[in-house]
Amino acid sequence: MTANQANGPSSRSRIDRLRLCFSRLKADAFLVSHLPNIQYLCGFTGSAALFLVEASESTLYTDTRYTFQAREEVTGARVKIAHRGLIDALGNDLRARRGRRRVAYAAAHVTVAQKSALEAAGGSGIRWVSGGDSIERLRAVKDASELRTMREAAILISEVVAEAIPLIKPGISELELAAEIEHAIKRKGASGPSFESIVASGTRSAWAHARPTSKPLRKNELVVMDQGAILRGYCSDLTRTVFLGRASAKVQRLYRAVLEAQEAARSAIRPGVTAGEVDAAARRVLKGYGLAKCFTHSTGHGLGLEIHEMPRLGRGEKTPLEQGMVVTLEPGVYLDGLGGIRIEDEVVITPTGALNLTTAKRDFVEL
Amino acid sequence: MTANQANGPSSRSRIDRLRLCFSRLKADAFLVSHLPNIQYLCGFTGSAALFLVEASESTLYTDTRYTFQAREEVTGARVKIAHRGLIDALGNDLRARRGRRRVAYAAAHVTVAQKSALEAAGGSGIRWVSGGDSIERLRAVKDASELRTMREAAILISEVVAEAIPLIKPGISELELAAEIEHAIKRKGASGPSFESIVASGTRSAWAHARPTSKPLRKNELVVMDQGAILRGYCSDLTRTVFLGRASAKVQRLYRAVLEAQEAARSAIRPGVTAGEVDAAARRVLKGYGLAKCFTHSTGHGLGLEIHEMPRLGRGEKTPLEQGMVVTLEPGVYLDGLGGIRIEDEVVITPTGALNLTTAKRDFVEL
Repeated sequence: MTANQANGPSSRSRIDRLRLCFSRLKADAFLVSHLPNIQYLCGFTGSAALFLVEASESTLYTDTRYTFQAREEVTGARVKIAHRGLIDALGNDLRARRGRRRVAYAAAHVTVAQKSALEAAGGSGIRWVSGGDSIERLRAVKDASELRTMREAAILISEVVAEAIPLIKPGISELELAAEIEHAIKRKGASGPSFESIVASGTRSAWAHARPTSKPLRKNELVVMDQGAILRGYCSDLTRTVFLGRASAKVQRLYRAVLEAQEAARSAIRPGVTAGEVDAAARRVLKGYGLAKCFTHSTGHGLGLEIHEMPRLGRGEKTPLEQGMVVTLEPGVYLDGLGGIRIEDEVVITPTGALNLTTAKRDFVEL
Repeated sequence: MTANQANGPSSRSRIDRLRLCFSRLKADAFLVSHLPNIQYLCGFTGSAALFLVEASESTLYTDTRYTFQAREEVTGARVKIAHRGLIDALGNDLRARRGRRRVAYAAAHVTVAQKSALEAAGGSGIRWVSGGDSIERLRAVKDASELRTMREAAILISEVVAEAIPLIKPGISELELAAEIEHAIKRKGASGPSFESIVASGTRSAWAHARPTSKPLRKNELVVMDQGAILRGYCSDLTRTVFLGRASAKVQRLYRAVLEAQEAARSAIRPGVTAGEVDAAARRVLKGYGLAKCFTHSTGHGLGLEIHEMPRLGRGEKTPLEQGMVVTLEPGVYLDGLGGIRIEDEVVITPTGALNLTTAKRDFVEL
């Protein structure tokens, strides 16, 4: 074991949980190529790695840039530094194993080019089999230590948003407001934003994924702020929409509709309910307001080491919710020429229902 | 044409340049799936898209979140909003074409899972053929408008670093310094950092790709700062190493070695020289200092819409340099227990040699 004792036990048990999938996959080993999956299993945070989990040992392959870092970070696995390319180093080891072996891999995370290189490097003794989303499914259910970190990350971003709202004044540009938000994220100890912060004002707020521009905020505009922080590897995600000035009755009604839709989604959550049923609950409310067509995305998504994880709370999704999953609830409506309203919080699924992780107020704010 | 007239002509000519590859690829069309390639060809900056370039028309497929944004951003192509999934929408169009068709795709940017879905959606009339790195090769050579933006992005990051150096004092943490750097990046009008800024101090500076931590900077430590900005989509990249206190003769010699290695790489650059020859020039200098084994990565990389692009200035790379390519020159040495030194600048390749884009001083700074 290395210096990083804190990660040791959880790395060990995560790798063991992956090994429990081997019999279902009819695999002797699992080749992990997606970096967040590698981080989850052994703690390594570098940008180039392959991780081979076998029945009795695990090996991280990385390159010479990460010699020292891998030694400090990796627990529960040995480290090999590849001098000629990770796939070559892996191939050498695979070809040294006796007999024919079945190695699982995730088709969603291996490119066609990498697959060809793996086949060539592994030789004819390796049969590559589908590992599906086995690791993503493990990651969807958070353990106690992950939940503590995610709660902290959610509180951090809630504080950032509370402090950003007083900065919303006519004249400040979307980019300037985004810069203040991202600076506060780092000042509060996060390693950075979990995605490029969205600040979209006026008619641009109808772009659900708008990037901030040099456009100044103006009186009588909607302002959508969507941001998150990465704290010790874990993402948070929070959206608030405010109005600069006195909102019309129409805008107030839109806000109420979105807030009710979010509340309906929250109330629908409990273990065993499908992700699609939660999405349907939000959609039903907006349909009642005649806004079904203005809600152009899904109700939410899981998050953790990545900003988008399983489960997706979308139309018809069959995944049953489980205790320990963390998801966003973020219904929104977007009207061309008028603007958009989105309200997003993070919840963890408990035996009795959804528990908020984010703590920012949800009342309609007119500035 | 849409409102975004400025992009019009360059989008058109970029798509036409891709069409010139069709005969070499024996393809009737090119399916572009890598988002920076899509942005390069048609201007779209959203996070979900496929782009089909055919002989006489081009189509961007995106989802309902991007209806308004696509309408504003895309030039030289029509936009289709997919309601059931991008691959399904594309497949419908492909199956409606007459006769058998050959569609090129990039194996490095399509996962095994996406490939299966494309084959199913396109039906038996489509033969999928390798498009290789055709678009990356186009992107490697920057046009005048790209070079103007990249020069601005390089000056911006040079100013950020010049302003950050006075903040380097005992007690400030790596994370706090990184937060100041990233705040300055946004304050100066960039959309954000082009990668997570590296601030690594003391023995951690020997991690070539260290993430900043809460560790405070201390007297008598090396501090490596590696950062970049994204300005109107284009990345910059700059590294400086400073010493907090009076450096020993050994550290001063290491710095001199790295600086000489960078200068040797710069002097080796001219059109027609291979990327590997530039790498060898830097490596030769460090070998002369007995530091060959401490230089654990390649000498540099192309950059543009992405932080790592063609060409890679690495050992034995055969790509000949061309006028208009932009590359980093970033030799470094890393000594376990002592720390690391890296000096990185960006240059553009001109008919007569390398021209610096970054403007920050390279002298050894003791603070």
